[in-house]
Amino acid sequence: MKIALKISYDGTDFCGWQVQPNGRTVQEEIEKAVLTVTGQSVRVTGSGRTDAGVHAKGQVAHLSLDGCSVPSERLYLALNAHLPDDIRVLESKAVANDFDACRTAKKKTYKYSLYLGKITLPLKERYAVKLDTDIDLEKMRSASKLFLGEHDFKSFCASGSSVKTTVRTIYGLKIDSDGQDLTFSITGNGFLYNMVRIIVGTLVKVGEGKATEQDILSMLNGDFRSLGGKTLPAKGLCLENVEY
Amino acid sequence: MKIALKISYDGTDFCGWQVQPNGRTVQEEIEKAVLTVTGQSVRVTGSGRTDAGVHAKGQVAHLSLDGCSVPSERLYLALNAHLPDDIRVLESKAVANDFDACRTAKKKTYKYSLYLGKITLPLKERYAVKLDTDIDLEKMRSASKLFLGEHDFKSFCASGSSVKTTVRTIYGLKIDSDGQDLTFSITGNGFLYNMVRIIVGTLVKVGEGKATEQDILSMLNGDFRSLGGKTLPAKGLCLENVEY
Repeated sequence: MKIALKISYDGTDFCGWQVQPNGRTVQEEIEKAVLTVTGQSVRVTGSGRTDAGVHAKGQVAHLSLDGCSVPSERLYLALNAHLPDDIRVLESKAVANDFDACRTAKKKTYKYSLYLGKITLPLKERYAVKLDTDIDLEKMRSASKLFLGEHDFKSFCASGSSVKTTVRTIYGLKIDSDGQDLTFSITGNGFLYNMVRIIVGTLVKVGEGKATEQDILSMLNGDFRSLGGKTLPAKGLCLENVEY
Repeated sequence: MKIALKISYDGTDFCGWQVQPNGRTVQEEIEKAVLTVTGQSVRVTGSGRTDAGVHAKGQVAHLSLDGCSVPSERLYLALNAHLPDDIRVLESKAVANDFDACRTAKKKTYKYSLYLGKITLPLKERYAVKLDTDIDLEKMRSASKLFLGEHDFKSFCASGSSVKTTVRTIYGLKIDSDGQDLTFSITGNGFLYNMVRIIVGTLVKVGEGKATEQDILSMLNGDFRSLGGKTLPAKGLCLENVEY
């Protein structure tokens, strides 16, 4: 039987999603909880690997069990009883055998949170990144439209990833401003390694007047990572939800 | 010379504001930073003592220095260079000699954050408290009006405090609801030990249908702590600002 899980975690104290030899990971903690609850040592496959420090409000994962005494729709309660406080399974349900949290994902939405100011704010620092520069919000909003649609995002990808294609489709990119808070919501059919953090970093560079819309167009038409902004820190990023 | 500081801190890892023999406190960290910057070992007096775990967005404190090579309005920068990440001084300025962060405070505003739901949410848990019951928002809003004005709050005070009078004036009490988030903002001329946490706990009890407006009236007219709700956890509480 195949089961899908919807999961939230505070990424601060994790070395990311994926199991690794050294370091605490979300995947490992969930697999340990599954083993405790079901007695089965199985792989829990996420919709994607979030990096060290990245948070999730609605990560989705699947696992296959050889039967289970706990009903699928109540499995999340049993898992939560064995998970650390910084991970919670929000929902569990039986899915068709061809469901694959990674391969059948249709849309993902990430949020990136910044706050404007000169002083680090202890109550914002855990989930947002301080931006200590003057930015032109309208310039950023105008430039953000360039990302919509299908593009080759190879200029918006950190080196070290091995993917078949760097073409992705962006369905939406919204910038919300509320007092000193600035939130970027971006929805696409998939994202390359560090892609959201580089896109937001590049929009910030545009907002600061240090890059232009033409630079973004050049990046979308070739391999020009150097024209973009820096890869912003992981802690500002949150995987909001995954659609199937 | 007397200097006022505006301070923000994440209360999670502090045993509250006030210096104590065992345990890390906000006051001690600031006094250590003042000593490092000015060479002077002086008391830093807050507008009030926040308890262990309580956060502050705008705590105010004063200190008296025997001269200082750093201009008052730039002192915050020097202090921040020596403070841990969970405390930041947002502002510093010279004030008149009769300014007293505690005694001359006219109004304080606290916020208390709850979220409704059955599952603990890792991304909310640091600054809010989960409420896993059905509540009637309109009942709470109606009951909240009973607190406005001058009352004897001895029924809304934890034992162990020694104050001259338990009479306080509440200027405003607002309940904001946004999705599953529920935020209580309460402004008064001062607050007794645990008073905000007991008031919000009592309003929750009313929202749950387990206490009535008459119970609140009884509490405001006598010593009936037992009629109230429980003292809610510290982590949901934040000192928003202090007015002089």
